Amino acid sequence: MAAEAVKTLDGWYCLHDMRTIDWTSWKAVSNEERLEAVEEFKNLLTKWEAVEKTESGSHALYNIVGQKADLMFMFLRPTMNELTDIETEFNKSKFAEFLRPASSYVSVVELSQYSGNSSADDPKTRERLYPILPKWEHVSFYPMDKRRHGEENWYALSFKERARLLYEHSKTGRQYAGEVKQIITGSFGFDDWEWGVTLFAHDALQLKKIVYEMRFDEVSALYGEFGEFFVGNHLAKEDVDTYLQV
Amino acid sequence: MAAEAVKTLDGWYCLHDMRTIDWTSWKAVSNEERLEAVEEFKNLLTKWEAVEKTESGSHALYNIVGQKADLMFMFLRPTMNELTDIETEFNKSKFAEFLRPASSYVSVVELSQYSGNSSADDPKTRERLYPILPKWEHVSFYPMDKRRHGEENWYALSFKERARLLYEHSKTGRQYAGEVKQIITGSFGFDDWEWGVTLFAHDALQLKKIVYEMRFDEVSALYGEFGEFFVGNHLAKEDVDTYLQV
Amino acid sequence: MAAEAVKTLDGWYCLHDMRTIDWTSWKAVSNEERLEAVEEFKNLLTKWEAVEKTESGSHALYNIVGQKADLMFMFLRPTMNELTDIETEFNKSKFAEFLRPASSYVSVVELSQYSGNSSADDPKTRERLYPILPKWEHVSFYPMDKRRHGEENWYALSFKERARLLYEHSKTGRQYAGEVKQIITGSFGFDDWEWGVTLFAHDALQLKKIVYEMRFDEVSALYGEFGEFFVGNHLAKEDVDTYLQV
Amino acid sequence: MAAEAVKTLDGWYCLHDMRTIDWTSWKAVSNEERLEAVEEFKNLLTKWEAVEKTESGSHALYNIVGQKADLMFMFLRPTMNELTDIETEFNKSKFAEFLRPASSYVSVVELSQYSGNSSADDPKTRERLYPILPKWEHVSFYPMDKRRHGEENWYALSFKERARLLYEHSKTGRQYAGEVKQIITGSFGFDDWEWGVTLFAHDALQLKKIVYEMRFDEVSALYGEFGEFFVGNHLAKEDVDTYLQV
Amino acid sequence: MAAEAVKTLDGWYCLHDMRTIDWTSWKAVSNEERLEAVEEFKNLLTKWEAVEKTESGSHALYNIVGQKADLMFMFLRPTMNELTDIETEFNKSKFAEFLRPASSYVSVVELSQYSGNSSADDPKTRERLYPILPKWEHVSFYPMDKRRHGEENWYALSFKERARLLYEHSKTGRQYAGEVKQIITGSFGFDDWEWGVTLFAHDALQLKKIVYEMRFDEVSALYGEFGEFFVGNHLAKEDVDTYLQV
Repeated sequence: MAAEAVKTLDGWYCLHDMRTIDWTSWKAVSNEERLEAVEEFKNLLTKWEAVEKTESGSHALYNIVGQKADLMFMFLRPTMNELTDIETEFNKSKFAEFLRPASSYVSVVELSQYSGNSSADDPKTRERLYPILPKWEHVSFYPMDKRRHGEENWYALSFKERARLLYEHSKTGRQYAGEVKQIITGSFGFDDWEWGVTLFAHDALQLKKIVYEMRFDEVSALYGEFGEFFVGNHLAKEDVDTYLQV
Repeated sequence: MAAEAVKTLDGWYCLHDMRTIDWTSWKAVSNEERLEAVEEFKNLLTKWEAVEKTESGSHALYNIVGQKADLMFMFLRPTMNELTDIETEFNKSKFAEFLRPASSYVSVVELSQYSGNSSADDPKTRERLYPILPKWEHVSFYPMDKRRHGEENWYALSFKERARLLYEHSKTGRQYAGEVKQIITGSFGFDDWEWGVTLFAHDALQLKKIVYEMRFDEVSALYGEFGEFFVGNHLAKEDVDTYLQV
Repeated sequence: MAAEAVKTLDGWYCLHDMRTIDWTSWKAVSNEERLEAVEEFKNLLTKWEAVEKTESGSHALYNIVGQKADLMFMFLRPTMNELTDIETEFNKSKFAEFLRPASSYVSVVELSQYSGNSSADDPKTRERLYPILPKWEHVSFYPMDKRRHGEENWYALSFKERARLLYEHSKTGRQYAGEVKQIITGSFGFDDWEWGVTLFAHDALQLKKIVYEMRFDEVSALYGEFGEFFVGNHLAKEDVDTYLQV
Repeated sequence: MAAEAVKTLDGWYCLHDMRTIDWTSWKAVSNEERLEAVEEFKNLLTKWEAVEKTESGSHALYNIVGQKADLMFMFLRPTMNELTDIETEFNKSKFAEFLRPASSYVSVVELSQYSGNSSADDPKTRERLYPILPKWEHVSFYPMDKRRHGEENWYALSFKERARLLYEHSKTGRQYAGEVKQIITGSFGFDDWEWGVTLFAHDALQLKKIVYEMRFDEVSALYGEFGEFFVGNHLAKEDVDTYLQV
Repeated sequence: MAAEAVKTLDGWYCLHDMRTIDWTSWKAVSNEERLEAVEEFKNLLTKWEAVEKTESGSHALYNIVGQKADLMFMFLRPTMNELTDIETEFNKSKFAEFLRPASSYVSVVELSQYSGNSSADDPKTRERLYPILPKWEHVSFYPMDKRRHGEENWYALSFKERARLLYEHSKTGRQYAGEVKQIITGSFGFDDWEWGVTLFAHDALQLKKIVYEMRFDEVSALYGEFGEFFVGNHLAKEDVDTYLQV
């Protein structure tokens, strides 16, 4: 017998876009070309800020630590087509000539309805479905699955049991209120894992502490499967010049 | 004792062909070269449209979201050789010089005969074996296997049990009639997974909803193994110029 | 207690060599250079044909469908050194400058002796150990292992049980006599999987049908682990000019 | 029921940064350029030494054996941002133009509190949280997870049982006191594995002996999952000129 | 309860170093440059032969069959630093400019002491710890692990049971005495697998036969996990000119 599926509310579409800077070719071009590329890049950032001001989307930019990437963009938009438009416009920009693709993730902001049904008209719910991304100091992004393996099969558990496990899990999360802000995006049919998790924190250590502590929650211990982790520091538009100065 | 194999009806051969645009080299050549490349590319699209009009094949073109690819072609043809011919002709074209291979998948349109035998002469069946691909707004493509692992071994289940599980699964699918169009292609002996699934939708969210909901079906929960997912937006021939304008 | 190992008869050494054509650089050189490269390549084909005529080896050339490769060579030779010699001579040729390595597989033609011992002097057996490869229209190549995992451990089964399972399996194969020709090569100690399977067919669909039907055989359902699949169309020497014409 | 999570003390943030030297391009430039690059690189080393002298961070440099990398830097700093700053400054340096990224790992020095709570103010504890890296002759670095699989699920064990297993494990480690110095860094939320292990030794053989012997400890035998291993020889600043001389 | 660890005797450090020849760039340079590169390469071979003559190390050079690599060097030296020195000197050589890294493996010659303790002073034992590599016609190299998975956990077996299984295994090996020479190297803490196995044979078929037959030994059937296999033909210094002639 199939388990009862859960209903979800879905908000803005989401693209995580990681890039690696080719510093050698960046240094090889003239100062003029670099200035032009930075200017155009900052204009894009300004354009995206304007979208955010009208609450028709949001974005954030982080420096990824280590060799997995140098930059991570996170974009939220009302349609999948707008994500492609952003990607294409950026790919055609001068700055993109000095970047190599590092990774990406396609998903949609998701609220699962395990504990009663929220209304998409409720302002509190709307804020969660169409969130303005916090520009907190640090970010951690990782995709995840729920396990389907022998005795440990999330999709064979009853709705009630899943609801219980997630409720317990949420209690751990709530201990980090104010310290860590979490955005869950769903990616069934869109990308290789089932969900993306994006965590924002003022103190990088809190990113580790919440992930570690949650690993002991029954739902993670038995059913969590995790992909690649990206950790980063916020890169504000006003720091772009310095960061790219060579 | 071996389980009874299922009979299939098989239609057109299928190639999913994903490519990434090298925007830097695309921008580096002269406007004339780019125009020439776009013109030749659109001529290929026109040629493929002519094939479709005579119902001797079909194709569709999508922009893939994220860094996995920029373009996904899906081709249907009566023979495997025609797939190679298309691939080779495209590889020799000017536009292909600016593309890098991203992924591909080789399969054949498949109807399994679990619930009685269809006749390949029945017009309804013919439409499913030789489908003209819908040019709906969004696509999701992913390959999949049926699990063969310990207690969870699809190929050790009885024919009757497999028929039951797939029948239940089809009921979930039918709830999305008109919202999602699904084409199943088989790839035993042709590519690394057992089947390819191509879903078309007007609303991208329906792609997520159907895949998520089906994950709770017994057949997916216990036996489904999934590969890489590609999600995209339809790219009409009339939008090619704009898309490639730099 | 260890299970009794099986004896094998082993014939010619085998190299599957897949290459991808770099069409951009192929188009970039002068017509003269291309003609010279094609000529030299056809001379190699002619040289290999001469080997085949004296029955001191065999080879076949196929166009692989999809992006995994463009060409697959399959070489059979009496010694491992001759395989390296072919590879080295080909690598030094002009045409090879336009090819990128895609994949390869090293093995040896193998007849397992589960159902009584054949004699390597028997002409029927010799034909199977030193086969002249059919130049049938289509090919499918894939490597495979027998599973060693918990209850499903091929190498812990008795000789008798393995013999029974393979005998059942062979009955499925025999239904495709005349439709599909199969060559099994062993690669213990030579390459990453235990065997290579090369299937030849006049009708590409038979490649799918035999692999699918065999998946339900007990031996495949419980013990078969499969690697990457390559499917292709025969490329005759007389079609090389057209194929490489740009 | 969820198992009780463990508390940790966390010290300096840690970046392992592996690079491969592109010897061909290194040899291709003029002697002057090479001298300039080496000079600038040694100035960076000197700058990092100054940080170490004030105990506001530490670092070490090793030659990795084999093709995985040529150089491994290990950096310890009080903040995640300083790790990015080091990385960015190094990436902008001349020498970095001749290096290719090979691997990296982001973590934080971690002391788990299984056997009573240490105080972060205790000088002994501080030395472990903010360690000056030994410049011993050899290093071994590898990431690891604790298994979560069926009966072997570390995160489902009681606190007491985990404490017991780790205590037993520590006894094996203590036999190598003076021979091997071990630094454990945690990477939940930061990188793809749960911990990084960095071992320093005067005698390379001790690196093998401790890892081999520990594999028989119950905690490793049942719960240890290991990633890629990097082994290296110390590269002192005074040996850099010779090493890079071509 | 932890199982009792085994003691080992350890000999020379070992580096397997595989490289792929970039034939296109090799052909592109002048004959003079190629001659110079070959000369310098043969001088390195001569230098390594001198080390072997004084029994302070050993080495062998093989042509790998298939696309995994073209050359495999196996080096044995008393210290880890000497392995790096060889690697660095070779990387700085002219010939290395035409090679791409293909794979490598770092380990140390290991004798496990399951059947009584050998003395490292015993001349027979010394010969095994510090072996002069045979220059037999063929080689097979592969890394391996012992399984740690549920019921099949090598590291949870008693010392006595492990000793029994390895003793049985050694009997299979002894049947190939004179046909196959085997060198076991341990790589705990050094590389990604636990051991490397290097097999030398006069007849390539014996490499397959021993690996196949041993797969049925209880220890391999239940506990053996195998990595990538490299098979090759001996390349004598006097054949280097011919091999590299273009």
